[in-house]
Amino acid sequence: MYECSLDRMKDKIKTFSAFGDAGHGGITRYSLSEEAIMARNEFRRRMEAIGADIEIDDLANMYATIPGSEPDAKRIVMGSHCDSVKNGGNYDGILGVMAAMEVLETVVENGIEHKHPLTAMIWTNEEGSLYPPAMMCSGIVCYDYLPEDIRDKFKYDDMMKSKSVLDNSITFGEILKKSGFAGERRFRLDPKRYECMFETHIEQGPILEDVGCDIGVVDCVLGMFNYRLKFYGQTTHAGTFPMAKRKDALLAAAKALCYIHEEIDKLGYSDLVYTTGEIVCHPCVHTCVPDYIDFSFDARHENPEVLEKVLEIVKSCACKEWCGCRCEVEKAWNRDTVYWNKELVGYVKEAAAESEIPHMYIHSGAGHDAQFCAYMLPTTMIFVQSKNGLSHCEQEYSSPEHCTEGATVMLNAVLKADQRGSGYE
Amino acid sequence: MYECSLDRMKDKIKTFSAFGDAGHGGITRYSLSEEAIMARNEFRRRMEAIGADIEIDDLANMYATIPGSEPDAKRIVMGSHCDSVKNGGNYDGILGVMAAMEVLETVVENGIEHKHPLTAMIWTNEEGSLYPPAMMCSGIVCYDYLPEDIRDKFKYDDMMKSKSVLDNSITFGEILKKSGFAGERRFRLDPKRYECMFETHIEQGPILEDVGCDIGVVDCVLGMFNYRLKFYGQTTHAGTFPMAKRKDALLAAAKALCYIHEEIDKLGYSDLVYTTGEIVCHPCVHTCVPDYIDFSFDARHENPEVLEKVLEIVKSCACKEWCGCRCEVEKAWNRDTVYWNKELVGYVKEAAAESEIPHMYIHSGAGHDAQFCAYMLPTTMIFVQSKNGLSHCEQEYSSPEHCTEGATVMLNAVLKADQRGSGYE
Repeated sequence: MYECSLDRMKDKIKTFSAFGDAGHGGITRYSLSEEAIMARNEFRRRMEAIGADIEIDDLANMYATIPGSEPDAKRIVMGSHCDSVKNGGNYDGILGVMAAMEVLETVVENGIEHKHPLTAMIWTNEEGSLYPPAMMCSGIVCYDYLPEDIRDKFKYDDMMKSKSVLDNSITFGEILKKSGFAGERRFRLDPKRYECMFETHIEQGPILEDVGCDIGVVDCVLGMFNYRLKFYGQTTHAGTFPMAKRKDALLAAAKALCYIHEEIDKLGYSDLVYTTGEIVCHPCVHTCVPDYIDFSFDARHENPEVLEKVLEIVKSCACKEWCGCRCEVEKAWNRDTVYWNKELVGYVKEAAAESEIPHMYIHSGAGHDAQFCAYMLPTTMIFVQSKNGLSHCEQEYSSPEHCTEGATVMLNAVLKADQRGSGYE
Repeated sequence: MYECSLDRMKDKIKTFSAFGDAGHGGITRYSLSEEAIMARNEFRRRMEAIGADIEIDDLANMYATIPGSEPDAKRIVMGSHCDSVKNGGNYDGILGVMAAMEVLETVVENGIEHKHPLTAMIWTNEEGSLYPPAMMCSGIVCYDYLPEDIRDKFKYDDMMKSKSVLDNSITFGEILKKSGFAGERRFRLDPKRYECMFETHIEQGPILEDVGCDIGVVDCVLGMFNYRLKFYGQTTHAGTFPMAKRKDALLAAAKALCYIHEEIDKLGYSDLVYTTGEIVCHPCVHTCVPDYIDFSFDARHENPEVLEKVLEIVKSCACKEWCGCRCEVEKAWNRDTVYWNKELVGYVKEAAAESEIPHMYIHSGAGHDAQFCAYMLPTTMIFVQSKNGLSHCEQEYSSPEHCTEGATVMLNAVLKADQRGSGYE
């Protein structure tokens, strides 16, 4: 069992946390921004320092590779993203990049033998904060391998035209060109040159901390669906229109939301998560009764039958009438549960056990680049405990010790894959 | 009893509806916009055509006056505003201007004798659609007469700095100067030169239509209060955070809104109106649990004791905890019920009865410039039936017949005030 370096991990956390430091504990580091380019240059500098070879594909995905003892062996890749949401934390994404660097650094420093070349990687624009959608570049790279309904959302030409949410005169294609990080298409991640993929990531939830485990052995990314519920009422003046004749779309939406929660909670699935995070109100003036409300509904669970029951409840809203308002239920998108490669999951479990690091099996509720890779390559993920389960906010925190443990588990799991393969022929 | 001209009213409605015509039945005519200036020039043209003298004060309020037989008599003023909300209708505000013009035109055409000079008026920026607040210029003109807590919101210097909601680099003061309609302060409406004030307006509610009355004899503007309810939760990732540990501010707000409605409805006041028209959500992303919701709460009733009971319910939310979220209840503003001058209300009632126009007493639930005038001058209002009670939308409609009846009632009520005074010494 090898161990990664706590001191080197601390140094990396400190260094990368400065790129986009928003001044109150977190970062804003949009993909291909000046701050993200500082992080990319730091990655290049550190990887070149250990003799890694740098490749950049046409989507600015970066690959730093050290050779293995068998020249024809395919590469084993580890990585994540270096972009953040607005006012995000210092761990989401970048931890997976730092852990991958740490694995390569440990291998080189200790002269650890390995047959396969090992690659540390940065995915471009995972968050999609400025240029939607999220997981844009893994979507493009894995395009040919994705299920058809997912694939349709990641057409290269469409992605290049994705407009900045802050300034719709700028497209992703333009910013990619301007960044100086658009390389060659032949360098894209590809099953012909790559053996398998590992991604270390913070849990972004409180489960590991609650159970007292440092590391999560991730077995799948939960299936999910996303719907919009739309309520159509009638706008009238707040002062002149009797209550009995109103069609108040906001009150209708509030009643529907309470109804949905009551009904779903009756199903009694403690491992189900569902969320209404976005609400749109029209005309949204304090002196007018709202005539239109539109809210999101997101539900996630491993078992498609559970999701089906939840969806029945959501769809039943369209047959109801709250406050005289019509309700429409519209599908936005869904995805099936993606299971990680069993051999790789087993290597992660073994590696954690052998290093005596407290660990447990866990599902991923969030989407990650790894889940698109899983359609193309044997893939798995390692979760690191998140303090209070907070993420996508500046309070996001994982201790340097836990981060280093994540790298250690990945290192030893990678060495197992190097020896025993990924069971994928 | 005199009668105004249906044909002339139809012609005015058609003409003014073109200024800001948004192409689907309504208008967008922000105060002092190009479209509003077209309406102002049309007002000037028509009023000069009957020999009226035009004055414009420093706030661009316009006054068209025809002389009376007693040179020293104070003026009787009628008017409303010519600006609209975004995608508003063809009647809110402008009907009161058209009715005032119609009164002057009828008086001149028929050589109707009157002692007092008669003035038709346009108030600037009643809606406050681009430059808040609403009723800005009546607030400034009546400033010295307003109750202190209302007055504080209408300081001249602050108003001049009011920024456009569409482009915060432009202020009301600048647009006023650029409009070419900033005249002289000495022309402002003032109790030294003006006897009393009438405003004709659409009802903006369904009561007159439901009861089968063409005209509302308005007796008061309802007292009201405006509060904000704020809910503080914790944002987390929609996919990774167990339901039991969440602090979902949107669900908390939905439950609070349902609670407020249930409790207030139990009070059983059918003439009470209350509204949540505005909701703010943070971060408002479909993959994040909202950590902050803020919604408006507006309640209106003639009786302050009723409002007090409603306020108790609203304030009780601050002692509750929904979904683990803290709730704050903050006062935005309130106003007492404003009763119109009894003599003037009586004249309106008599005028409607003598012309055999179906009419009823009614409260105004909405705010109007007239309500600020009421602190300074004897004032009253006349309501015209609104189809389906709709207003602040393109479906807003009042028939030309009802609009003309509104002008006829105002004409005859003004002639009574001309003869018998406004009981105000």
